[in-house]
Amino acid sequence: MSDGFSFTLEASDGPARLGVIETPRGKIRTPAFMPVGTAGTVKAMPPDNVRATGADIVLGNTYHLMLRPGAERVAALGGLHKFMNWPHAILTDSGGFQVMSLAKLRKLTEEGVAFQSHIDGAPHMLTPERSIEIQCLLGADIQMQLDECPAIPIAHGAARESMLLSVRWAERSRRAFEEKAAPGQALFGIVQGANYDDLRRESLARLLELDFPGYAVGGLAVGEGRAEMFRVLEIVAPEMPAGRPRYLMGVGKPADIVGAVARGMDMFDCVAPTRSGRHGQAWTRRGPINIKNAAFADDPEPLDPSLDCPASRDYSKAYLHHLFRAGEYLGPMLLTWHNLAYYQALMAGMRAAIAAGRFGAFVARFREETGETIL
Amino acid sequence: MSDGFSFTLEASDGPARLGVIETPRGKIRTPAFMPVGTAGTVKAMPPDNVRATGADIVLGNTYHLMLRPGAERVAALGGLHKFMNWPHAILTDSGGFQVMSLAKLRKLTEEGVAFQSHIDGAPHMLTPERSIEIQCLLGADIQMQLDECPAIPIAHGAARESMLLSVRWAERSRRAFEEKAAPGQALFGIVQGANYDDLRRESLARLLELDFPGYAVGGLAVGEGRAEMFRVLEIVAPEMPAGRPRYLMGVGKPADIVGAVARGMDMFDCVAPTRSGRHGQAWTRRGPINIKNAAFADDPEPLDPSLDCPASRDYSKAYLHHLFRAGEYLGPMLLTWHNLAYYQALMAGMRAAIAAGRFGAFVARFREETGETIL
Repeated sequence: MSDGFSFTLEASDGPARLGVIETPRGKIRTPAFMPVGTAGTVKAMPPDNVRATGADIVLGNTYHLMLRPGAERVAALGGLHKFMNWPHAILTDSGGFQVMSLAKLRKLTEEGVAFQSHIDGAPHMLTPERSIEIQCLLGADIQMQLDECPAIPIAHGAARESMLLSVRWAERSRRAFEEKAAPGQALFGIVQGANYDDLRRESLARLLELDFPGYAVGGLAVGEGRAEMFRVLEIVAPEMPAGRPRYLMGVGKPADIVGAVARGMDMFDCVAPTRSGRHGQAWTRRGPINIKNAAFADDPEPLDPSLDCPASRDYSKAYLHHLFRAGEYLGPMLLTWHNLAYYQALMAGMRAAIAAGRFGAFVARFREETGETIL
Repeated sequence: MSDGFSFTLEASDGPARLGVIETPRGKIRTPAFMPVGTAGTVKAMPPDNVRATGADIVLGNTYHLMLRPGAERVAALGGLHKFMNWPHAILTDSGGFQVMSLAKLRKLTEEGVAFQSHIDGAPHMLTPERSIEIQCLLGADIQMQLDECPAIPIAHGAARESMLLSVRWAERSRRAFEEKAAPGQALFGIVQGANYDDLRRESLARLLELDFPGYAVGGLAVGEGRAEMFRVLEIVAPEMPAGRPRYLMGVGKPADIVGAVARGMDMFDCVAPTRSGRHGQAWTRRGPINIKNAAFADDPEPLDPSLDCPASRDYSKAYLHHLFRAGEYLGPMLLTWHNLAYYQALMAGMRAAIAAGRFGAFVARFREETGETIL
């Protein structure tokens, strides 16, 4: 584990865990939700407001940043923290997932992935070593190994081949990281293996030999459904080391996160609160609502006056409805802000419940209020 | 003059004036710039940030608000201040200018303007009485008479006919206002007459008989050019009553405002800082720059660290350039914020200069820094 990076498990309540990750950029309270700041900005949010919602860490996307404005340029400007005016912790992904979903003319080999930029068609090569180099240029506090993330369903043989490639890339990522990383930065390994229990176990066992300071579960929330995702977590999480943070990548909606915390996961990221906020969906204690619905045109109530967030507290639903109907910037701005505040309040609620040994009651109440059945 | 509304002239430096308008919603320091909040929002700005730039008052557009969400709806929701979460002063225009520039199938008669909504084609009628009714439903602190605002050039005869219609509408507006307005609200008359000196003088003389608590100069910045606008102001302003605020409608760029303050005007509104900010133009002490220009891709300097504004101080031009290139919401958000901070700092600078009796030096420095020749 790198100097200056540590994880302390402070309490457990069944499989649910309360913890703190220490980094040179500050503490990350877990369970933690990381707002997604793809291109060096959490969309439609000034960073001060992101912080004020309770976020300890945001996520940046290596694929987007390497293409525009470019990792070397960000480094010359003082690194990603300074560039985006976010002095707190940043996690970057490896770029692998977005290369496979966004880039053109991809070619995957043992060496890495050759592709063309979706912006200008320029050729690029992403290898485990280049991914780490980029993440170090950006100055990410938590970095991710390059991996391959196949869709589900996938045949067992192909899933194992892909998983073993990811393990070999984990090893190469680790070597590159040891050469390039700054003190206090940490590299996480990523458990793959689709929805095959034996492959997930094999992936984790091989990564444990490499002794990462944190472990992610990747390749979920790719179409398998919530019940199947939870089933895989029930296989993997109990075998993950208790003393290391556990990151469930790309997850999810509130019920996904509550269910994953109940199964022992600690860290989450998802575009749901920001993307859906830009499109008029607000997450509330009673589930999501679409503010563009005519039912809200005369609704004088705010989204949630109990949240310590101006967007949730100081504007009527009628006003938010009007902003979306009129196509005003402030609509997406306020709904993004509210959704992030809702997500962070959800995380804070879970942390308090775990600390008090009443996580079961928290989940029961969440189930009752939202009507979610699969938890 | 209405109870609770007053104007105090605190100092003069040549024709330039320093003053304070008192309203039940707070003080308005003049010379004042009013950010435009057309549809119940200063575009891309949370109201707290508008306030933090130094704005004492914002402008709302009657035409937009009457069509969407509707004046009666805003009134039922507690008025425009509450609706848009702006507890400070609000000025609304009469709707006349936008009807003539935006609506479909307009028909102007002595009674008023019949038109179809540009949003859904619904028929509407805007009369002096209905305009005041709407402005009172919105709860505007400063309201404007309905007027006709002809383009320049226009023949003298047509300009006089139009001006006299505006005077008759001023009288009807005043009667309606006396019936409907709340204590502390004020109605301003609008001087018209295109760029004919005699018509401007006649318009003002007729309005003075109606004894408004404030007077606007309308029908400028409609294509006549800065020099011609200043020439008209030099005719009109000296004849406007010293003890009443003087509002130059729809003006302008920084040099327009500085030159108009130098000619004795007190209040201004313009979409320039907000609209140009959304399109990548930043106003600076050295004039406007286009942040999308490739020259800024690696520029580590902020727009203006001397401004007490996060958008001006905490982000490099390279970052702002990146945000616009990437099409991120935060680009327009930050440039709008910066531009409003720049405008408000410009107004504060003029107020301080007038108070200190060094307005001439202020104008000389502005001219030197910006390279503006017509001032």
